[in-house]
Amino acid sequence: MKILNILEIIEKKRDKKELSTEEINFFIEEYTKGNIADYQASALIMAIYLNGMTEKETSDMTMAMAKSGEVLELSDLSENIVDKHSTGGVGDKVSLILLPLVASLGVIVAKMSGRGLGFTGGTVDKLESIPGYRTNIGIDEFKENVRKIGISMISQTANLAPADKKLYALRDSINCVESMPLIVSSIMSKKIASGAQKIVIEVTVGNGAFMKSEEDAKKLAEEMIKIGKMVNREVVCILTKMDEPLGFAVGNNLEVIEAVKFLKGDMPEDLKQVVLELGSNMIKLAGLGNDLEKNKEMMLENISNGKGYAKFIEMVKTQGGDISYIENLDKFPKSKFIVPILSKNSGYITNLPAKEIGEMACFLGAGRISKDDKIDNSVGIVLTKKVGDFVKNNEVIAYIHSNDTEKAKKVEKDFYEICEIGNSR
Amino acid sequence: MKILNILEIIEKKRDKKELSTEEINFFIEEYTKGNIADYQASALIMAIYLNGMTEKETSDMTMAMAKSGEVLELSDLSENIVDKHSTGGVGDKVSLILLPLVASLGVIVAKMSGRGLGFTGGTVDKLESIPGYRTNIGIDEFKENVRKIGISMISQTANLAPADKKLYALRDSINCVESMPLIVSSIMSKKIASGAQKIVIEVTVGNGAFMKSEEDAKKLAEEMIKIGKMVNREVVCILTKMDEPLGFAVGNNLEVIEAVKFLKGDMPEDLKQVVLELGSNMIKLAGLGNDLEKNKEMMLENISNGKGYAKFIEMVKTQGGDISYIENLDKFPKSKFIVPILSKNSGYITNLPAKEIGEMACFLGAGRISKDDKIDNSVGIVLTKKVGDFVKNNEVIAYIHSNDTEKAKKVEKDFYEICEIGNSR
Repeated sequence: MKILNILEIIEKKRDKKELSTEEINFFIEEYTKGNIADYQASALIMAIYLNGMTEKETSDMTMAMAKSGEVLELSDLSENIVDKHSTGGVGDKVSLILLPLVASLGVIVAKMSGRGLGFTGGTVDKLESIPGYRTNIGIDEFKENVRKIGISMISQTANLAPADKKLYALRDSINCVESMPLIVSSIMSKKIASGAQKIVIEVTVGNGAFMKSEEDAKKLAEEMIKIGKMVNREVVCILTKMDEPLGFAVGNNLEVIEAVKFLKGDMPEDLKQVVLELGSNMIKLAGLGNDLEKNKEMMLENISNGKGYAKFIEMVKTQGGDISYIENLDKFPKSKFIVPILSKNSGYITNLPAKEIGEMACFLGAGRISKDDKIDNSVGIVLTKKVGDFVKNNEVIAYIHSNDTEKAKKVEKDFYEICEIGNSR
Repeated sequence: MKILNILEIIEKKRDKKELSTEEINFFIEEYTKGNIADYQASALIMAIYLNGMTEKETSDMTMAMAKSGEVLELSDLSENIVDKHSTGGVGDKVSLILLPLVASLGVIVAKMSGRGLGFTGGTVDKLESIPGYRTNIGIDEFKENVRKIGISMISQTANLAPADKKLYALRDSINCVESMPLIVSSIMSKKIASGAQKIVIEVTVGNGAFMKSEEDAKKLAEEMIKIGKMVNREVVCILTKMDEPLGFAVGNNLEVIEAVKFLKGDMPEDLKQVVLELGSNMIKLAGLGNDLEKNKEMMLENISNGKGYAKFIEMVKTQGGDISYIENLDKFPKSKFIVPILSKNSGYITNLPAKEIGEMACFLGAGRISKDDKIDNSVGIVLTKKVGDFVKNNEVIAYIHSNDTEKAKKVEKDFYEICEIGNSR
């Protein structure tokens, strides 16, 4: 038997050779256990960044990371566990709307979500802004809830893909996040560990997304579909724009409110398109309808007949949340200051960059800069206009929700700098 | 003022951009201080390994590492401090012979040497095998000795180029030693820190050397000459073969004995050529003779008239060594067992691989596997034949000097495997 060693693995990748399944398994297992030093892992990661990985290596990496911790067994809930993933965006409340809506159509939803870091918010943070909502329940209760009402949305309680968590932090600290095979294996390993058999992935593209160009986003989508096939998971990728925030609200309470209103029929156009695209594919993958257009109609119907909203209420109740907040959105705590931003001229809005607006909301307290930061659920930014809209001089473009006047002033000043207004769309 | 940060430096090198002098200085200074983590340094090193460095970057790296600790000021000893360096070999006792010899011709020698690690021996270890010889003296006494007798050879007492030491250890632990710009800056920074104005570098090439091919060795030599010019140091490189051990002896006492015999006129041909090549260039760089052939003649003269030997005796005495060992070589302690290796057939010796013989000597106790290992001065291997020599059946090819019969047996067995005998040279 050949004794594996990290120096030889580094050398191989350094010299552009393909790593074997055994070598990748060895690296992931031993790194997770702490038997391989960070400085050795980081040399390997830089070599992977620069020399790439083959599809075989990427799928091996995916499975090795998926198996580095617990792997959820959800097949007792459904043969077709369909998961949804987004590569991230600003104002992204899609899961809050989409998952109860497809659940109301019979798709089994057993969803573990993450917290936000940096300018991107996390679904769990948004759920937790509903008083009483328990995101931190055990697997048994989680499954029990799914069995009872067809949906449960919680935080990642299990120790899923710890290798990915450790490697991602390392990549972040050596500027090696943007490596295609590492991005693909990171996303796919987490989904596989969380029990997904079929996966709809929203690949966001633009200023507020991980992928800045459509070309890169397409490539990422293609890779994920390929690797999905190799690891026996059906993957559908939907490319969506992330140049401006999705919908109007950015901030935890603010986004929950927007999500609830959506489920009651008040649907911002861009958000509606994303929800329908992802949902119609989830329904199809769940085996509940092959015609995507018909699936969209079914979804819209469950908006108008209130079944989507009812499923949301049912979920919140089952998770221990106080539904009086949902039924009366005014109950959500407001920030001390709500400052309107008035346009200084008139014209068409040509740019509302998602990243910068996400960063402003984060600065106000809606997000975390480092992992242990506390979140302020009431703060954020609510746009009243979207790119392409006409705005008159002195008309409100957005509201700043803040608990600190100095911060609000800073954000107001910054907002004028990033919001562009021109003579034509 | 731009605030430098390691993440941006990693990103630049990752993306094949040239680092500025300030960025390289920042990296070296902060890494030496421990303000940059090993895992970040190792990502940068792998990026340098794969994407290379320009000559400007390499010379910046050289000077940054040279200045990372003390820089010896030797100009009060001579305007022309000429240093000698070797990229390493097996049986390399060149410094022991060469430096007293050129000192006897007026070249000022103020030399700090290293200890051995792995299969390559270190000059300091060899000097220390002379009872009483003090390698560990302070700078003042070191300079005083040079002023008094024109030569002092000691160990690296000063904190020279600590950045290089730290980076070399890191490179070794991530398989990134063999990077041309990193090798060049490592060698040059140490020489500059040790006060050299002019440097003769022996670039060894072959099985027992760092550079395995002549092409690589030539490239390294060219790079060092170029970088030398950029940092205002005159560099001469001499390529020498390192396919078999240099001379006959491998091991500390054994090599000292061979060196003393050399200085008394008993000169193995290969060793003689290396000593003459390096020495004639040192004499030229020191401004004591422009004609290399004449310089060689002067050296040979100081062998025959005993002046080279006398200088060696004078140096040992001045450093506190017991010259009775030099005057009576039989005083050096012998190993318990001296095992002859008898040829199993007759023919021409076609291969005596330096690396493997160095490893055998190291296994017997002559070298260190890890930094804190103790050295056994009496053990090693003494060849009686060189590649190209004819050997009869049952004739002695080499002697194993060992204090452990089991180890001697193992080496004997291994020696038969690596020593090749053929029908023609």
